[in-house]
Amino acid sequence: MRYELYYWPEIQGRGEFVRLALEEGGADYIDVARRRGRGRDAIAALIHREGIKRRPYAPPVLKAGKLLIAQTALILHYLGPPLRLVPRGEADRLWALQLQLTITDLVKEIHDTHHPISTALYYEDQRPAAMHYTREFWRNRVPKLLGYFDDVLRHSRGPYVFGGRRSYVDLSLFQIVDGLRYAFPKRMRRFENKVPRLTQLHDAVAERPRIAAYLQSERRIPFNEWGIFRAYPELDG
Amino acid sequence: MRYELYYWPEIQGRGEFVRLALEEGGADYIDVARRRGRGRDAIAALIHREGIKRRPYAPPVLKAGKLLIAQTALILHYLGPPLRLVPRGEADRLWALQLQLTITDLVKEIHDTHHPISTALYYEDQRPAAMHYTREFWRNRVPKLLGYFDDVLRHSRGPYVFGGRRSYVDLSLFQIVDGLRYAFPKRMRRFENKVPRLTQLHDAVAERPRIAAYLQSERRIPFNEWGIFRAYPELDG
Repeated sequence: MRYELYYWPEIQGRGEFVRLALEEGGADYIDVARRRGRGRDAIAALIHREGIKRRPYAPPVLKAGKLLIAQTALILHYLGPPLRLVPRGEADRLWALQLQLTITDLVKEIHDTHHPISTALYYEDQRPAAMHYTREFWRNRVPKLLGYFDDVLRHSRGPYVFGGRRSYVDLSLFQIVDGLRYAFPKRMRRFENKVPRLTQLHDAVAERPRIAAYLQSERRIPFNEWGIFRAYPELDG
Repeated sequence: MRYELYYWPEIQGRGEFVRLALEEGGADYIDVARRRGRGRDAIAALIHREGIKRRPYAPPVLKAGKLLIAQTALILHYLGPPLRLVPRGEADRLWALQLQLTITDLVKEIHDTHHPISTALYYEDQRPAAMHYTREFWRNRVPKLLGYFDDVLRHSRGPYVFGGRRSYVDLSLFQIVDGLRYAFPKRMRRFENKVPRLTQLHDAVAERPRIAAYLQSERRIPFNEWGIFRAYPELDG
């Protein structure tokens, strides 16, 4: 099966969680909007196609044969079995998706550090609210959420959430740590020793051969200030 | 199977999407924290139980035999087949969950109308940001998101997202319309004629015998100012 990923070509964004899974799973896939000359038009053409019956709300969208699947966590849930990125049993698949949905919640909160009021406004027009949001986020939410995942890894005995076997959840947690380090280098340096198992998971994922190759390739879009993780020094405390 | 729902006893909140499904599905269930004398302690006892291996992050949590399932959309995905609240085919189950995850995103945005900065702060301490957020929410997000679901219903030919057959997604969309009417009566009155299919879906769900009986029972907690949908007149424009 050749998968087609439809996602914004300029950013890692939510699509990056899918890209990491496709790469680690060794999937045959096309990052459609990044192919020369297609860009964002390819996404619009897919979502607003005449006669489409089940229109996805927003990218990322995975095309798998005739199926169109949107919502990052659902795409990963779907890709898990064929790419061997989740154990087979029902309880394990439910646990993986439960964890992924909590990562989804965290991603939204990370995004809101720079856009707490509206995505329709520029960052510069909501900066005071962003600074307030970010302070509270690092005071309350980061310890609670990253602490939760560190606790999950304590129970699994690591390095991954299913123990010795990596899953799509681990790839996403790698991206969370990587992105927080980019966006909040000072805060993250101070905080990270409180979640040592997450740091270890990040390193274990980064060293996996396919991920290491991907991260060094041109397929990995660098972090920038249009995505979820944005390096605004005034938010870094 | 007797299901146990663990959710805050004083509010509809995210648990209400699960309660509606359990009710419409005719499930044998216990709303554990609402049983006399148990309250919030029952939730803490479950989540922080000594020796628990796969701790859920937060309620609602469904206990189904030995399985513990958290995250509202995942609970509904799990309950769909046994309660006959979703068609059987894989494509249909994926579509239902995709829609439910977009509802999840919407619920978070509705919550943030009164808590845009932090859930750790009182509403009164983030009121200016709440007013700004709410204006933008009604200007950009409500038209886009409710418009999307209205469009889904146009394609399904209604009254439900799978046409003539109701699903857990419809129960959740009923709750969205019901809650927005409670929290933003004036705004909703002005807006609702733009999404006539959602209004029709709301009414179709409300008239279903089990839902109608539930809504009139003491099991339906009234809306109040501790939940997701809060009636703060200054946010209603």
